[in-house]
Amino acid sequence: MFEELKVYGSEDFLHELEDKKPLFLCVLATTATSQIPGITGAGAAPDLTEYTPAADVELIVHEAPLCLPEIPKTVVEGGSTPTPAVITKACIELADIPFLVADAGARIKPNLPYILINEKPGDDIRTGKAVDNPRKIFENGKILGEMLSGMAEHLIIGESTPAGTTTALGVLTALGYDANFKVSASLPENPHNLKRDVVKEGLKNAGIKWGEKVKDPFKAVEAVGDPMIPAIAGICMGTDIPITLAGGTQMTAICAFIKAIEEDFDFSRTPIATTIFVAEDETSDINQIARQIGDITIYAVDPGFERATHKGLHGYLTGSVKEGVGAGGMLLEALLKGVSMDTIRDRIDELCHKLF
Amino acid sequence: MFEELKVYGSEDFLHELEDKKPLFLCVLATTATSQIPGITGAGAAPDLTEYTPAADVELIVHEAPLCLPEIPKTVVEGGSTPTPAVITKACIELADIPFLVADAGARIKPNLPYILINEKPGDDIRTGKAVDNPRKIFENGKILGEMLSGMAEHLIIGESTPAGTTTALGVLTALGYDANFKVSASLPENPHNLKRDVVKEGLKNAGIKWGEKVKDPFKAVEAVGDPMIPAIAGICMGTDIPITLAGGTQMTAICAFIKAIEEDFDFSRTPIATTIFVAEDETSDINQIARQIGDITIYAVDPGFERATHKGLHGYLTGSVKEGVGAGGMLLEALLKGVSMDTIRDRIDELCHKLF
Repeated sequence: MFEELKVYGSEDFLHELEDKKPLFLCVLATTATSQIPGITGAGAAPDLTEYTPAADVELIVHEAPLCLPEIPKTVVEGGSTPTPAVITKACIELADIPFLVADAGARIKPNLPYILINEKPGDDIRTGKAVDNPRKIFENGKILGEMLSGMAEHLIIGESTPAGTTTALGVLTALGYDANFKVSASLPENPHNLKRDVVKEGLKNAGIKWGEKVKDPFKAVEAVGDPMIPAIAGICMGTDIPITLAGGTQMTAICAFIKAIEEDFDFSRTPIATTIFVAEDETSDINQIARQIGDITIYAVDPGFERATHKGLHGYLTGSVKEGVGAGGMLLEALLKGVSMDTIRDRIDELCHKLF
Repeated sequence: MFEELKVYGSEDFLHELEDKKPLFLCVLATTATSQIPGITGAGAAPDLTEYTPAADVELIVHEAPLCLPEIPKTVVEGGSTPTPAVITKACIELADIPFLVADAGARIKPNLPYILINEKPGDDIRTGKAVDNPRKIFENGKILGEMLSGMAEHLIIGESTPAGTTTALGVLTALGYDANFKVSASLPENPHNLKRDVVKEGLKNAGIKWGEKVKDPFKAVEAVGDPMIPAIAGICMGTDIPITLAGGTQMTAICAFIKAIEEDFDFSRTPIATTIFVAEDETSDINQIARQIGDITIYAVDPGFERATHKGLHGYLTGSVKEGVGAGGMLLEALLKGVSMDTIRDRIDELCHKLF
């Protein structure tokens, strides 16, 4: 359909979404897991990672973060790569996509109006007690899904959850899936061993054996998950309009959570849209995880950052950041609404030159 | 246009709204003013009034209040009258109107997902320091107005703010309008003297003379207002879609606030829709207040409660409750969407028999 798009999976529903009125919902959450040194690149330093979700959406609304002095970026040897919030901001503006922010439990709250689903952030999953009352978060998500149903025809749900691939690994593992060495990372060097060790410690402290399949998805999230997972799962199950899960391997944890609640859930209604940086990543395998869960279509969009003029964006080509804040899904939606990738990339470039 | 409708004012834009996609936003706030005995009927007792906004929207979503054991009602000699939330609930269901809840500063938060505009409730206006940072609340309202613009074609904004007519009197008076003995009440006996004395004490403590015209509307709200006023004013000024201000005399305080910020604001875009119980109330005069501010069209809807089978609803006919939670505007929107008043009243009756 678009040359910048790859489709994985048996079904392609894109033509059905072209004329649908979209709404982008960005769901924020943190867990103290993101403070473990080396586990995430979502922030310039471990103690700044919990500011990243708030700063991301503040960047979209205010053109600058208000909660901290610097725009979130991933710093690796050789330079820093801008947050994917700039990609999402460009798409929102060019394709005129309405958007709302929801708090599923971010420690730092953004300076803008947002939908409160859950206030309390998650703890370090090594404790084995990561999320308080995930059922309440899920139920609130369901109510929100119902509420949003009448306001749009296509819901695009993104997230900003630092260390979210680690909590995704936790939930996927607890639910019996083989996700080890398969979740993505915001760093070029995917710290798989660290992630596995963190999840192992969390499972052990929760009294769950590695390889044991936990039947209750709420127990899995409570032990080693993050509050974003039950929130988005609830939204998906509370609405009857088409959804695009805009994110990387974290979104497979949501699908696994949903399947544990409703075995026959129709995933044709909730494809995953991500970037080519996740889909073609050699250090992870989103398709392999998704296939274990069900027939989940995966769309992967290539923003062509090799032609970007802002050098920071080249970090995406070597594995920094990759995805987040709904970037892949928003690129897809902008394409669906007729904006060309050249126009989108020009605007991203322009924003980066202006903001960084 | 409808036999159940009266129109006051020079312009009637209803035909333009018929085919527009609506969104109902219910804005909650409290001030400690509502605890002054005898000032409001929005709650069965003074100490319960601060629960009323949360309980109202919980009733709509959950069919029961979760934050307190009893459904809000106005108790006077002769019986109790159900909250207008039942009217709004019936209209939402019958006309399938999408709705969201926003917190502008309610002391008790509802058990459901809501948009956080401002967390802190207002203080007793007798202190002369009622609302903290109304400018921030207004700015957040503006952002929300922008966000909601793309999600609907017609925004209906209601409120639940106990003692809100007293804070409206405060703001109107501070802004130089003659609203004394003209604001409405949720009680058949309008406690005008008490309201005036409360406002007088607040103005005095804020260093504002009765009759003095305060130029800065933020100063007026800060002294003797409530957080709902700058929140809704911000939403109105942040959006470019048509708005219906769904409420009674409180809505005139919002119009006055807006006019103090933008002298030439086009009020043809923000008519007030209320119930006949407010518009024809002999103890207040919404039209007289509105005319002082500008050419504000007022729609008043008659739900024909003399034909209601639930006796509690007859309390509206003798001056209890009158309006709130967007009831008048939602009745109008349901009519616009083709639901007959008989159908609406039957559903309200049914809800009352079931819930009370």
